[in-house]
Amino acid sequence: MEKTEVLIAGGSAAGIPAGITARRQYEHARITLIRREKQVLVPCGIPYIFGTIGSPEKNLLPDALLSKNNIELILDEVASIDRSNKAVVTSNGKTMGYERLILATGSTPIVPRIPGVELKNVFTARKDVEYLNGLSKALEGAKDVVVIGGGFIGVEFADEFRKRGLGVTIVEMLPHCLQLVYEEELCSLAEKKLSERGVNVRADSGVDAILGSEKVEGVRLRTGEELRADLVFVAIGVTPNTKLAEAAGLTIGPTKAIGVDEYMRTSDEAIFAIGDCAEKISFFTKQPVALRLASIATREARIAGANLFQLRRRNEGAIGTFSSTIGDSAMCAVGLAEKVAREARYEPIIGMAVGPDKHPGSMPNTLEMKVKLVFDKATGVLLGGQVYGGLTSGEVVNILATMIQKRMTTNEIATFQLGTHPTLTCSPIAYQIVNAAEDAEVKRSR
Amino acid sequence: MEKTEVLIAGGSAAGIPAGITARRQYEHARITLIRREKQVLVPCGIPYIFGTIGSPEKNLLPDALLSKNNIELILDEVASIDRSNKAVVTSNGKTMGYERLILATGSTPIVPRIPGVELKNVFTARKDVEYLNGLSKALEGAKDVVVIGGGFIGVEFADEFRKRGLGVTIVEMLPHCLQLVYEEELCSLAEKKLSERGVNVRADSGVDAILGSEKVEGVRLRTGEELRADLVFVAIGVTPNTKLAEAAGLTIGPTKAIGVDEYMRTSDEAIFAIGDCAEKISFFTKQPVALRLASIATREARIAGANLFQLRRRNEGAIGTFSSTIGDSAMCAVGLAEKVAREARYEPIIGMAVGPDKHPGSMPNTLEMKVKLVFDKATGVLLGGQVYGGLTSGEVVNILATMIQKRMTTNEIATFQLGTHPTLTCSPIAYQIVNAAEDAEVKRSR
Repeated sequence: MEKTEVLIAGGSAAGIPAGITARRQYEHARITLIRREKQVLVPCGIPYIFGTIGSPEKNLLPDALLSKNNIELILDEVASIDRSNKAVVTSNGKTMGYERLILATGSTPIVPRIPGVELKNVFTARKDVEYLNGLSKALEGAKDVVVIGGGFIGVEFADEFRKRGLGVTIVEMLPHCLQLVYEEELCSLAEKKLSERGVNVRADSGVDAILGSEKVEGVRLRTGEELRADLVFVAIGVTPNTKLAEAAGLTIGPTKAIGVDEYMRTSDEAIFAIGDCAEKISFFTKQPVALRLASIATREARIAGANLFQLRRRNEGAIGTFSSTIGDSAMCAVGLAEKVAREARYEPIIGMAVGPDKHPGSMPNTLEMKVKLVFDKATGVLLGGQVYGGLTSGEVVNILATMIQKRMTTNEIATFQLGTHPTLTCSPIAYQIVNAAEDAEVKRSR
Repeated sequence: MEKTEVLIAGGSAAGIPAGITARRQYEHARITLIRREKQVLVPCGIPYIFGTIGSPEKNLLPDALLSKNNIELILDEVASIDRSNKAVVTSNGKTMGYERLILATGSTPIVPRIPGVELKNVFTARKDVEYLNGLSKALEGAKDVVVIGGGFIGVEFADEFRKRGLGVTIVEMLPHCLQLVYEEELCSLAEKKLSERGVNVRADSGVDAILGSEKVEGVRLRTGEELRADLVFVAIGVTPNTKLAEAAGLTIGPTKAIGVDEYMRTSDEAIFAIGDCAEKISFFTKQPVALRLASIATREARIAGANLFQLRRRNEGAIGTFSSTIGDSAMCAVGLAEKVAREARYEPIIGMAVGPDKHPGSMPNTLEMKVKLVFDKATGVLLGGQVYGGLTSGEVVNILATMIQKRMTTNEIATFQLGTHPTLTCSPIAYQIVNAAEDAEVKRSR
């Protein structure tokens, strides 16, 4: 039986950095990665294929990432795990032994059980080049698209479809788009931006059926109203790919993902699980939480990759950092929103600040940036934040992520050692993170 | 004798936030700010008046910052301090008592003692609207400008002068521009960018004399070579304004600035000093250090403003975060450069990473971003970093500033909880800060 030391099942945002980290930490180990896909898509780039980039082929993760780290690539799929013999069998019938196995099998878009979902021109964000080329082609002949689901994927696809000049309607079940992550104010803003760009938003609304004889002709809403459509895009979430782990008898957690400890080990110490297929624990509550992000996947990969033969890195739980853009407006969120903090039994104190994202405000291309921070009243520690502004917001929210991870308080953040420049940031006097912390500090002490 | 509770001398990047913080923390205190200038310039915006913004009047700090915080403004100047009676006398002969006095008297550009420095059309970055309007006017009649000094101010003014189509030469004494802050690689890059934009850089070179009969006609270099010039701009540093403090017998520190403790108090407990006039202590070595930045001034203001009547915030020392741009290229530095770390007796370990600043790299307007991190080998703690890239670099360096302040290690940074998005950041796999930390971690463990 052929044997490798580190076997990775899956080659996307979790599998690749797991391999790279394993190589960095265990210089001489034999590392093998088995994946099904001939070509691997950059997962977060998938929406941008359809309006901005132009084709799936411009959104690929290069295999050079593997070859230059001396990671063997096998195009196949792990079909079953024989834990007692520490070996896997692949779909092509190959048996391969391992010392450590990393499951990075990802997730699959959920397809709702509604009439018409099997019709031609119903698509999801499946991570498959050929499938997405099919979507591209179908879009060419389309005039009106209905997007079912107003989360990040739905909103980003909708915005891209609109860039092609298509009529686009988002149908969202909850009162607002993006509501699972953003505070209400940010949701409303996102909806306003979408509507300015010509995307129709039907919130608080559900789809009862997809209509058509052979291919999509429309959708029927819960209210009975019918919307014309040539194409339906479904983005109502993903489900972790756990079949392989379940069949091998590994413990599955309460969010239906593979259970892992703080070192990313499954119930079998020789098997690790990372990324969308692995259970997430909240940094704050230490309870299971349904966060699925490529950024979390790569982080877990770096933890697992380092821990394979020695426990070197610990996972304190996921904070969750989300960013998105509609046009030139960026909306970002990290950690606990005010309402979520309250539900988790914190007493939140809110700090707000708004100002220009350059200085003075007369600098060209200056946009407004707004920061809302959520602190724990008892300890003064930062729990979450939301940022709305221009294209620097995506890194501003990473400052907040760092502050949350290091449990910084109102006072520490109010005097944090920032740098500023007229062309790049707000002024040091108006710097939003600092002033939002000052705002909260005063409220906390009164 | 009229009496106020909090008296602030100086109304720029230190004085204003000191007043605002005092108001936040001491709701009912009487707060009075005395300043000389009718209008206050945004200090870091001054270079941008001359090519980008157009006039000093578009680069002002609004007095509304004072009025809406109920801070009294007096246009005058503190001429002397009577410490035993806790009172000041102003240039206009007014006497005013105080409970707490904050000195925020700033700094003055250094004028070198070289022949011709008194000629017409020799300018510095003096923070004075009328004076800068004089510079604007003189530039209208000019064709060639020589900038003496290739630090941040010199480089930024040179780039702006060039935007007006002027012939511009920077004369720098050291082997490279910006060498006091940037690593050599970044200095070379800055010089390349300057030269691409048509700015001549004469490094390793000095000016012996400014030539002309009544107004500037040229400069003579140390080598004897003469450069034609209609205008000379001098940017060789600043000197803290300490006359007032010295006359009052307050302790002056080794860098010729007003000595302060970690609460920003001078040798007189009722008198605080902040900003360019106050001594800085290094976060790393706890030794005096010549850092003068608006961002440090506002931070000290927030510390002093909170500590006036109760010690609430401590200054652990300045890290120093610098950002600048030449065209669309941003160059940023924080903390200790490799060489400086070595001089401070650390054994530095370097981590490097380079990648696109969006993802995939086929996204529009993608630029390369490079991150160099300096860690302490003994502890793995981050000491410094340099970032070169597009316009998000100014916030990326603030992530590093936060990490330095919280003494994060290679391992912590390699698994820090970042967020990413195709339109806003690098991919989570290639994210530069994380990969530079991974690079250093491996070097450290070998």
